[in-house]
Amino acid sequence: MITVTIWNEYRQDKTVESIRKIYPDGIHTALKNGLESPDLNIRTTVLDDPQQGLSDEILDSTDVLIWWAHAAHHELTDENVRRIVEKVHSGMGLIVLHSGHYSKIFQALCGTSCSLKWRESGEKERLWCIQPFHPIARGVPETFVVPQTEMYGERFDIPEDARIIYMSWYEGGEVFRSGITLERGYGKIFYFSPGHESFPIYYQPEILQIISNAIRWAAPQCRGVINAPKVPNLEPIRSKE
Amino acid sequence: MITVTIWNEYRQDKTVESIRKIYPDGIHTALKNGLESPDLNIRTTVLDDPQQGLSDEILDSTDVLIWWAHAAHHELTDENVRRIVEKVHSGMGLIVLHSGHYSKIFQALCGTSCSLKWRESGEKERLWCIQPFHPIARGVPETFVVPQTEMYGERFDIPEDARIIYMSWYEGGEVFRSGITLERGYGKIFYFSPGHESFPIYYQPEILQIISNAIRWAAPQCRGVINAPKVPNLEPIRSKE
Amino acid sequence: MITVTIWNEYRQDKTVESIRKIYPDGIHTALKNGLESPDLNIRTTVLDDPQQGLSDEILDSTDVLIWWAHAAHHELTDENVRRIVEKVHSGMGLIVLHSGHYSKIFQALCGTSCSLKWRESGEKERLWCIQPFHPIARGVPETFVVPQTEMYGERFDIPEDARIIYMSWYEGGEVFRSGITLERGYGKIFYFSPGHESFPIYYQPEILQIISNAIRWAAPQCRGVINAPKVPNLEPIRSKE
Amino acid sequence: MITVTIWNEYRQDKTVESIRKIYPDGIHTALKNGLESPDLNIRTTVLDDPQQGLSDEILDSTDVLIWWAHAAHHELTDENVRRIVEKVHSGMGLIVLHSGHYSKIFQALCGTSCSLKWRESGEKERLWCIQPFHPIARGVPETFVVPQTEMYGERFDIPEDARIIYMSWYEGGEVFRSGITLERGYGKIFYFSPGHESFPIYYQPEILQIISNAIRWAAPQCRGVINAPKVPNLEPIRSKE
Repeated sequence: MITVTIWNEYRQDKTVESIRKIYPDGIHTALKNGLESPDLNIRTTVLDDPQQGLSDEILDSTDVLIWWAHAAHHELTDENVRRIVEKVHSGMGLIVLHSGHYSKIFQALCGTSCSLKWRESGEKERLWCIQPFHPIARGVPETFVVPQTEMYGERFDIPEDARIIYMSWYEGGEVFRSGITLERGYGKIFYFSPGHESFPIYYQPEILQIISNAIRWAAPQCRGVINAPKVPNLEPIRSKE
Repeated sequence: MITVTIWNEYRQDKTVESIRKIYPDGIHTALKNGLESPDLNIRTTVLDDPQQGLSDEILDSTDVLIWWAHAAHHELTDENVRRIVEKVHSGMGLIVLHSGHYSKIFQALCGTSCSLKWRESGEKERLWCIQPFHPIARGVPETFVVPQTEMYGERFDIPEDARIIYMSWYEGGEVFRSGITLERGYGKIFYFSPGHESFPIYYQPEILQIISNAIRWAAPQCRGVINAPKVPNLEPIRSKE
Repeated sequence: MITVTIWNEYRQDKTVESIRKIYPDGIHTALKNGLESPDLNIRTTVLDDPQQGLSDEILDSTDVLIWWAHAAHHELTDENVRRIVEKVHSGMGLIVLHSGHYSKIFQALCGTSCSLKWRESGEKERLWCIQPFHPIARGVPETFVVPQTEMYGERFDIPEDARIIYMSWYEGGEVFRSGITLERGYGKIFYFSPGHESFPIYYQPEILQIISNAIRWAAPQCRGVINAPKVPNLEPIRSKE
Repeated sequence: MITVTIWNEYRQDKTVESIRKIYPDGIHTALKNGLESPDLNIRTTVLDDPQQGLSDEILDSTDVLIWWAHAAHHELTDENVRRIVEKVHSGMGLIVLHSGHYSKIFQALCGTSCSLKWRESGEKERLWCIQPFHPIARGVPETFVVPQTEMYGERFDIPEDARIIYMSWYEGGEVFRSGITLERGYGKIFYFSPGHESFPIYYQPEILQIISNAIRWAAPQCRGVINAPKVPNLEPIRSKE
């Protein structure tokens, strides 16, 4: 059983009428409903919950954290950023969605600005699988369309060890590394760009399948303690004699 | 002309008698003297200088920042960490020395904990060049010895895109990726582990040659602005019509 | 002075009327004319030259080899493949153009099949720079259009250490890693996909600028001998005593 | 059930008395005995078998191929090299042992010379795990000793996407990337350097555990056809109208 925590900023989907029509119970609830499975224990928390939805009890028991945020990145406390980053380093899986590319936690784990080009025109996006053998791509067609999306375009400022699982083509002329994996310490990270709040993208089967696969891929098989230990020598040291 | 700023924490080398004997004017001064060259404009700053030695005037005019710190990593303000990281993203070169592996700035740029094993036994270290064609290795023997050193051993928790220029062998039985490069945004980073304050390592010609080469390698040939621009479409969008 | 050898298969551009109209003296000659510069010593050879245009005299004096081939990949002798690969390993730069992705030499250096999707529809290609700070991108607009091209699409079966300098968007819906770098031994390799023989792509200034930059980037700064040496021990071996 | 084929050159272990004492039935048989497990279907073939032990029947039914070779690399036919490489590209796992670093198949898959330093002094080797969370390291101590070994030292000429699982320390002063993974097409590759024929290394539990783990890691979860398909456009092409 994999314990999944879906964390949602839950601001625009609570207050903006046009977005509420698409996600009446919030993006987190739509994702939870779309991802339900007998081998997953899924719960949701939101920014306005106590401790920003990130108590020790929650973080300590999370195998995979799913992150959706947009307008309130700056509200997440530096202490909570530090706590999440440490959890990833010691093995917790992390799935960062859409505008989460500019969250403090993704920037802290990438070490880069995570800047990109963007445009909100409701244009067509076509995704292409670059690693057809990767577990994240299992059961998903090699190419598929998101009918209306926010455009995210290159240059996407991410580190060179980002492994590309999906690349996107946009009607308006851009390309984008839209599905990438990273490893940081014992933890696995998947960033996936589709999911703009103005369109019903998290109801689309291919999108849910990819996130569902990513949960299984990112679930920790091994957790570790990272603590800069002082160690004795294993072979004899003669030079200082 | 490359403008180099050598930043030193300057605490132990100011107050501990045994270290003062080795570096009577501080590690920064020894490095400056060892690196002087007609094409370099080298200056030094220390943690206890105004603004922690990191005024806009200094940072804005720095091509390559050299970082030595150990006991006071926690004193560097989060704001100064953020400012340095941004400078690297937009092109400033960064050379992180020895215990700087655990500095907030190196951790922020790696996205990992940068944890490692360590031991202070004054043992012998032997370095091996892994990329003999790399500009950082120019003019340096393929292998050479640091007679007495602090041991830094694997596992070194750094990201997978760290490119190994030097690996070290330690008398006491450990191995270490002791010279690595990273790229973050427009900026180039070199981490080099030799340089423990208790031994006169920054007077050793091979060590100075490597740092000297790294300055030229990390000096920005191109600086960039990173700002997540909103952009118009370049190809016609028909899907929303 | 960098010595550049442009090797062209020179079959279709010699015999097919429609292609001859575009490249009356062959693709190699068009490239030579477009790349001429005071710091380059450029010469051309073709498959039907003696020793397939690859004598020791030519290979030994080449700093950067530019490779265009399409219909006659299989004619290149295994011995010549081996000789070129060895030259790259010891430092010779290599620029592989367009359909050269399926040449034996590129496959041998990648270690992968280099398979891709393709379509010849004369459609529009838009290139995007992914590494704006890379020397290969110097002086070239961040995005530009090849008005009519052969489509090359993902999945491009290349190894994970291929560093992406350019990505392409195609009118017909595909994306492609169209400009990538690799390093093999002491040698640097640039693969660049634009250049279909049916369109006048090698007269386009941006394309020539990129190839011109790549020549300077790939020119060897250091050549090496690679020979699996038997070596004496440097530290005392006591275990066998 | 994973079908494993252990391929052994079987020359020195057949004819050299001192090696026969260690491996009386050949290295392949010692490996088979050490790796037996209910979920593995293990068989062995040798160079002097019909079709060099590499018939279609054998290759087509192999999930993971284990390769030990040393003195007769040159005898493997180019056609068999090509067939094995294609199998790896389409998903077959490959484990290359010890002197197999200089086999034609490993060179063909790396794209590099795979040169290294070596010395046969029977010295002590100490291995360190660099990726403690990797499935190949499961159940193996972080560091362990091979009491007597042939030294393999850096620079090991392998590509940059080689991911380091183990690094070795040698008594005589060298370091080595002794356990590395690569991916080529759909196939996973593990190279592991311990295993010199003059010492009983393939009876050591840690060594067998690592190879055993690698079999499970390299077993194909997905096989693919790689064939450069010509494809129709998915989005309308207007530019050629």
